[in-house]
Amino acid sequence: MIIRMSRPYHHGDLRNALLDAARAVLEERGPSGLTLRETARKVGAAAPSAYHHFTNLEELAAALAEQGFAELTAALEAMPADERGRLAPLGLAYIAWARRNPALYRLMFGDSFGSAIGSNANIAKSRARTQELVVGGLRRQLNERDVPAAVLLAWSLVHGLALLLIDGQAGLETEAMIPDIFRLVARGIPLGPPTPSGKVL
Amino acid sequence: MIIRMSRPYHHGDLRNALLDAARAVLEERGPSGLTLRETARKVGAAAPSAYHHFTNLEELAAALAEQGFAELTAALEAMPADERGRLAPLGLAYIAWARRNPALYRLMFGDSFGSAIGSNANIAKSRARTQELVVGGLRRQLNERDVPAAVLLAWSLVHGLALLLIDGQAGLETEAMIPDIFRLVARGIPLGPPTPSGKVL
Repeated sequence: MIIRMSRPYHHGDLRNALLDAARAVLEERGPSGLTLRETARKVGAAAPSAYHHFTNLEELAAALAEQGFAELTAALEAMPADERGRLAPLGLAYIAWARRNPALYRLMFGDSFGSAIGSNANIAKSRARTQELVVGGLRRQLNERDVPAAVLLAWSLVHGLALLLIDGQAGLETEAMIPDIFRLVARGIPLGPPTPSGKVL
Repeated sequence: MIIRMSRPYHHGDLRNALLDAARAVLEERGPSGLTLRETARKVGAAAPSAYHHFTNLEELAAALAEQGFAELTAALEAMPADERGRLAPLGLAYIAWARRNPALYRLMFGDSFGSAIGSNANIAKSRARTQELVVGGLRRQLNERDVPAAVLLAWSLVHGLALLLIDGQAGLETEAMIPDIFRLVARGIPLGPPTPSGKVL
């Protein structure tokens, strides 16, 4: 998005304009290409005005991640609740959101801005809300003691699928296979013991 | 690794020294911090000598990825074969290798050097070999028609887990939960229809 500077920005306007521009820079160049300078240039703002809103790149990245987590959580909450707690619609919504916002998704779950993102209270709230949705669904189907591993299973699966698709690792036929993958997760695949001496299965 | 230049390198030596140095630069700075200049500087070679071996950054990245795919395949092949085709040992070896080589793993499966990696014949061979191992195991347990989705399920799961661990998204307790996750995959988790009108489950 290109925003022309035809008039001075109001305080909140400039912050929002910078965020919009940063998001465009991010999606064009990836997390490692995000800079405050390029963001300011894109809105036609002087660097000091930009620094007034975001002291450094980490702050800008955390603000973008905050937007992203809020949107992702809203996308999951918008899915129809299933009284049996089944999570496939949430899984699909998760993958779809990640694919629409590939660089932002990488930024949110990568380690480039890990500490700024990790210390943001609004992000923590969004993540807790998502966790609640997933845990709530899984509790209706599993023993309480299996829930933590099931949360991680579900998250790893959609995270892995989303990134394989975003990064062009998995072909286009992958998308069509997602219902089959979910069906196999439901039915189970014997994996055997994790080590020759392991006791699992 | 720091290699001092005490004598001129033989042809093959310099190539290997550059690869070792590039791998160190990669793990220090991540895929976006990899440069030919820094790699040459690290071995004390003049830039033109480095360019003699790697015409551009893409070539260097593909050579590193080639090493990585060969090592990852070897790590999987070294796992004890299970006559029932169960894959948990391979899954653990995959995640362990990724965690020992985080930046190289990101480079191999990210999109930064996608086309150089995608067109490398040795990488294609390593990937085909890994695919064979996984497909071979799954064929002993599943109907042929379920195998493609099961391959993708297994890959997404270990890719997702590896990246959540590498990127510090999942806590240390995650590692201890991997056997529980594999046990749940074996038993199955009902996920429900992927869409309100979907026919899956």
